[in-house]
Amino acid sequence: MTVAAPLPVALAAPAAVEPVDLEMVTRIRAEAFHNSQVMDHLTHLTENIGPRLTNSPQMAAANAWSRGKFNEWGLSNVHDDAFPAFGRGWEFTHASVEMLGDRVLPLHALPKAWTPGTDGSVEGELVQVEIKKLADLDKYKGKLAGKVLLLGDARAYKRGTEADSHRHDATSLEGLQQFTIPATAAADRDKRLREYNERQELARKTNEFFVAEGALAAISLSSWDNGIIRVAGGGSRKAGESAGIPELTMITEHFNPLVRALQAGETVKLRIRVDARFTDEGDQPGYNTLAEIPGSGAKGGEIVMIGAHMDSWHTGTGAADNGAGVAVAMEAMRILKALGVKPRRTIRVALWSGEEQGLIGSQDYVARNFAHFPEPTDPAQLALPASLREPTGPLRKLRDYDRLSAYFNMDNGSGRFRGIYAQENLAVMPIFEAWLKPFNDVGATTVVTRNTGSTDHIAFDRVGLPGFQFIQDRLDYFSNVHHTHLDTWDHIEAEDLKQAAAVMASFAWHAAMREEKLPRKPEPKPAP
Amino acid sequence: MTVAAPLPVALAAPAAVEPVDLEMVTRIRAEAFHNSQVMDHLTHLTENIGPRLTNSPQMAAANAWSRGKFNEWGLSNVHDDAFPAFGRGWEFTHASVEMLGDRVLPLHALPKAWTPGTDGSVEGELVQVEIKKLADLDKYKGKLAGKVLLLGDARAYKRGTEADSHRHDATSLEGLQQFTIPATAAADRDKRLREYNERQELARKTNEFFVAEGALAAISLSSWDNGIIRVAGGGSRKAGESAGIPELTMITEHFNPLVRALQAGETVKLRIRVDARFTDEGDQPGYNTLAEIPGSGAKGGEIVMIGAHMDSWHTGTGAADNGAGVAVAMEAMRILKALGVKPRRTIRVALWSGEEQGLIGSQDYVARNFAHFPEPTDPAQLALPASLREPTGPLRKLRDYDRLSAYFNMDNGSGRFRGIYAQENLAVMPIFEAWLKPFNDVGATTVVTRNTGSTDHIAFDRVGLPGFQFIQDRLDYFSNVHHTHLDTWDHIEAEDLKQAAAVMASFAWHAAMREEKLPRKPEPKPAP
Repeated sequence: MTVAAPLPVALAAPAAVEPVDLEMVTRIRAEAFHNSQVMDHLTHLTENIGPRLTNSPQMAAANAWSRGKFNEWGLSNVHDDAFPAFGRGWEFTHASVEMLGDRVLPLHALPKAWTPGTDGSVEGELVQVEIKKLADLDKYKGKLAGKVLLLGDARAYKRGTEADSHRHDATSLEGLQQFTIPATAAADRDKRLREYNERQELARKTNEFFVAEGALAAISLSSWDNGIIRVAGGGSRKAGESAGIPELTMITEHFNPLVRALQAGETVKLRIRVDARFTDEGDQPGYNTLAEIPGSGAKGGEIVMIGAHMDSWHTGTGAADNGAGVAVAMEAMRILKALGVKPRRTIRVALWSGEEQGLIGSQDYVARNFAHFPEPTDPAQLALPASLREPTGPLRKLRDYDRLSAYFNMDNGSGRFRGIYAQENLAVMPIFEAWLKPFNDVGATTVVTRNTGSTDHIAFDRVGLPGFQFIQDRLDYFSNVHHTHLDTWDHIEAEDLKQAAAVMASFAWHAAMREEKLPRKPEPKPAP
Repeated sequence: MTVAAPLPVALAAPAAVEPVDLEMVTRIRAEAFHNSQVMDHLTHLTENIGPRLTNSPQMAAANAWSRGKFNEWGLSNVHDDAFPAFGRGWEFTHASVEMLGDRVLPLHALPKAWTPGTDGSVEGELVQVEIKKLADLDKYKGKLAGKVLLLGDARAYKRGTEADSHRHDATSLEGLQQFTIPATAAADRDKRLREYNERQELARKTNEFFVAEGALAAISLSSWDNGIIRVAGGGSRKAGESAGIPELTMITEHFNPLVRALQAGETVKLRIRVDARFTDEGDQPGYNTLAEIPGSGAKGGEIVMIGAHMDSWHTGTGAADNGAGVAVAMEAMRILKALGVKPRRTIRVALWSGEEQGLIGSQDYVARNFAHFPEPTDPAQLALPASLREPTGPLRKLRDYDRLSAYFNMDNGSGRFRGIYAQENLAVMPIFEAWLKPFNDVGATTVVTRNTGSTDHIAFDRVGLPGFQFIQDRLDYFSNVHHTHLDTWDHIEAEDLKQAAAVMASFAWHAAMREEKLPRKPEPKPAP
């Protein structure tokens, strides 16, 4: 039998109650709920500017417009923050595909980003091409000149077995409280790294091969059914690398019949016109837009950040991904400025670019302003986007590393905030629970230990800085809009954005006013 | 206290058990499940022929192809059955809409049937036009020349709160057992009739007005969200009536932003190109395709019919509506012929046309072959499609009126048969229950008293003939495909069609072999 050791003093003492400034929350809610401008921001961003592919003219317009709003509101240090050598800008203005022959009909397809236009209409016979490895290219040598390529095979239609739109209830929120202990993943990680690099190489070589063979255009299958075009990038955006041939993503309902026709031995001819162009000759930097409400006094050098990525894919208008996050982060700043707050710490907003290509804008900003790991020497690691690399030690901290209290991000569509992911930082949980309490009545209740990934708070988290993302109602984010041509204004919930802006403003305020910066996790160790 | 009357003899005696030929059902199931060709029929109809707008060249191709198959299988009396003066044929081969100006992008829209093409690309400024009554036309006089008209207002996005795809379970089938006693509807019926005729007149006058004013084209809003184009007819198909101006139906996600832009005072310019044409100079008859397996012996002059409409709308390929029904009815005939059956009654299949415009083909066939009410003298009634008219007595019966046992129809998409609607004919229910029993194991279990409408069995039912339609699993019929551009092959369930073909073949067989024709409801009385 052992004798229990006495509890450490800090745990034995009664826990301090996290202070919440309810008078300020009342003012924030009043401004957010009754004088909201969040839908004005969203409308301008999506319907006047439109989609904002990184480095496209519209992304530049969004940078300029958001700077203008920040200046109009009297924010400080409003500027675009360049991250180097992203690539060339690109835009498209027309896409049409028609099946010719006995059964003439328009097919619905839209171009992949960074693929060339067709220079007017082109017509060619369709051939099915399946390339899974480099060796597959050989069997098509000499066979693709003047052809339109149908890439891959048909995919069986998958019936929708749950509602398009989903909101959390008590049960699903409770489910998020479970934490999955990560498996030791080194072997798998190496495999995934190798596969990633192989896919990249295969894509590059395939682009070059199609160009060399003189193929006219290529058609690939949308990853979702029901007429939804879900499309990302195709050819390389980098000057000097191959943009490939014109490539479009087609709806399942039109792609599958083409496969069946070819497999039945029929001759299919398509007419295709894509008007698309690179808007730069050489690689250009990308630009984040930043602005702040300066802190003052002893903690004036310290920083709280909020943000969201402003870039989007190109076929919708980037409304849920991530006009919603931008409108909310901008509105949170507008609310705080409208209330004339004088925070102790600086409150800084960042509207990132290059997120869709691998958190590039936020990753580079964090590296230049807070901390980074040394550049890897392993060529396989070096080939990866910085955000996917394994940490190679030691962490190099810059001056502001110790000055940042926290970063709060929004990037899961327009759904209401239902709580926040603590990213395994258990010491922040009672703090966030206290901050959420005055928003329990509008559905924000839940702090969970688990991590969420795939967006800009990860750029902070991976260097050991407190970066967080909110739990949101999913709505139709993963059924209709994520990276699709339906990611448009009408899929946005105005009331949810008002709620999110209030919560984000309040979190920024409380983080800025708190006596201490937020607790941190252990500093990340590089892989041995 | 009263003394109970003795039960009538027929009820007091034990009910005769409806005979079922299980050996024949076994053979039908074997052919339907293990040697099925139903997907071959469906594939040819939808992917080789394509959509089949009534009187379009593709509808003629479908008539010809189905005749060919019926002849190939050795059916008798294979022929096209003309119904008079449907109107002109029409087809379209291209449709594109682009927003011009600062934000250039392709918009997704498809033309309404029987509207003209644009004769190349046209460009015009967009104006919102709301016409709810004839007097509304005045305010647009002199203002529409060279304009593109945005018809109506935006519609708020409606979130999907149930799964796209639905199959019956015990509870939902049980729910169908409830019958709703019809309200006395005369007053409402008159109102609806008047409104129907007013809408028709408004549409005609509006078409003529837009042409006279020189408007370039019109855009209306799809009735469903999520990028789905749900579109029927626009201009008149009749020679000598106005086809109006080119008119397209646009997805919600692209229509609503146009409304908002105009309402914000912006100038919007569209470029539109529609290639569409009438394929006839004057009105042409429509054509049903019929074929039969002749009966022999004493009941050889009697008839059992099965069928489905072969015409469709024009933007998908008419797969669920109603390629599925056609493939199943054809397959039921193929199965019976393959089994070398010699039925007592003639088994006749009808592939109707003009269904989508008001059951025109079946209605006219029934009138010419079985019975009809005299043509109404009331001009308001006369203006209606025949299938919508009030019966004006007395019913005029033709020779075959007493020779038809029953008509079985399929037209609710590709979902499995779960039972059958008895159309308030309770005497058929034990018969249908017996016939369904050997298909209980594949989900067909339920006979309900209630009526179902909106398709070709109604042409029979309204003159007092036993016309029936099966209960089907809904699948995504009313969420994705009904009259939409997504009504295509991939939304079809092959196994469900095999099951339906077996049930339809067995129902036809048992009706053909039964000692008596099926019991009938009381003969319909004309309105007083």
